[in-house]
Amino acid sequence: MAMESIPERLRQQMDFIAEADKLKHVFRQSYLSDQSRRENDAEHSWHLCLMVLLLAEHSNFEDLDTLKVLKMVIIHDIVEIDAGDTYIYDEESKKSQAQRETKAATRLFGLLPDDQRQAFHDLWIEFETEASNEAQFAKAIDRLHPMMLNHLAEGKTWNEHDVTAEQVRKVNRQIEDGSVSLWTYTDDLIRDAVAKGWLPGST
Amino acid sequence: MAMESIPERLRQQMDFIAEADKLKHVFRQSYLSDQSRRENDAEHSWHLCLMVLLLAEHSNFEDLDTLKVLKMVIIHDIVEIDAGDTYIYDEESKKSQAQRETKAATRLFGLLPDDQRQAFHDLWIEFETEASNEAQFAKAIDRLHPMMLNHLAEGKTWNEHDVTAEQVRKVNRQIEDGSVSLWTYTDDLIRDAVAKGWLPGST
Repeated sequence: MAMESIPERLRQQMDFIAEADKLKHVFRQSYLSDQSRRENDAEHSWHLCLMVLLLAEHSNFEDLDTLKVLKMVIIHDIVEIDAGDTYIYDEESKKSQAQRETKAATRLFGLLPDDQRQAFHDLWIEFETEASNEAQFAKAIDRLHPMMLNHLAEGKTWNEHDVTAEQVRKVNRQIEDGSVSLWTYTDDLIRDAVAKGWLPGST
Repeated sequence: MAMESIPERLRQQMDFIAEADKLKHVFRQSYLSDQSRRENDAEHSWHLCLMVLLLAEHSNFEDLDTLKVLKMVIIHDIVEIDAGDTYIYDEESKKSQAQRETKAATRLFGLLPDDQRQAFHDLWIEFETEASNEAQFAKAIDRLHPMMLNHLAEGKTWNEHDVTAEQVRKVNRQIEDGSVSLWTYTDDLIRDAVAKGWLPGST
């Protein structure tokens, strides 16, 4: 049979790529900007890539490695195929998040050839622990994206979960570690959302 | 008001990023691997990014610029927000494709600051005209992806459109320009699909 002649390394790579198709079924809390439906992780990851290309110039770091930031945002949510999406304001679910995601990383990245398994695992850990300038900027973009969508969707997700401006500021303040100017922008979004009645709290 | 203090450049960038959210509404002919629904352009673009990271080693070119390939696949379908998806086997629709997409590129990339508008437009043209090694590899991945999904979905899209193995070979043969080994793999997929009765034609 034709498929039996495929080299083992390429077969492992294609098996992983096929498994990754499931990320399109993992839905987030954020709605699309037109509020028609929630967004899935694959769409979210693509949107982050686009933001990195356009907004890298706003990072706090002069010698930012854009390729590395892109690699991080491309793979950062793959563990959610097994672990599911954890809402950033859900304190209960966040308690088990690390354990669920570590197990998922072992299974999912374990489908890859050894060198790529190790490379993806290292990138994911670096992102999660914010262990480099690139990870801090990637995290900043990962936080800014749902803020932007939620502002466009007139606060729909915040309202569904009774989130306040104080919680939003606390969770997103970390954007500043990756980009002072994007945090200033985010803070403007929050104050605008409060002023428009989409988010309870003080401007 | 808070939002009025945002610098013009950042405002243009964020307006483009918000407009790009619409790519999640542009549906392709390909089904997800579990056949549950069609795939949209944003998901497709993310999946290509992942494939580029893992499969770049199979390109025909030793000094491939992976960052440039990623940039191309991230932006390659944005014009479809205005121009819609054109099915690769639809000869009638393909006649007007260039005109529709050129107009779309002007409007959409025109939302960006001048330097980024020019950079995105140049990248998109380079991709479309396959004017570099990076463009040839990006195109190869863009063709391989629906082949892989369609094989996983047991030929569902091919069957809906009465596509034959001969047409599939003709359209996808160009994968060889970017990667001889990925074309060999694709050819194996086609022969396997024919053998399994998912695609009419000869093995």
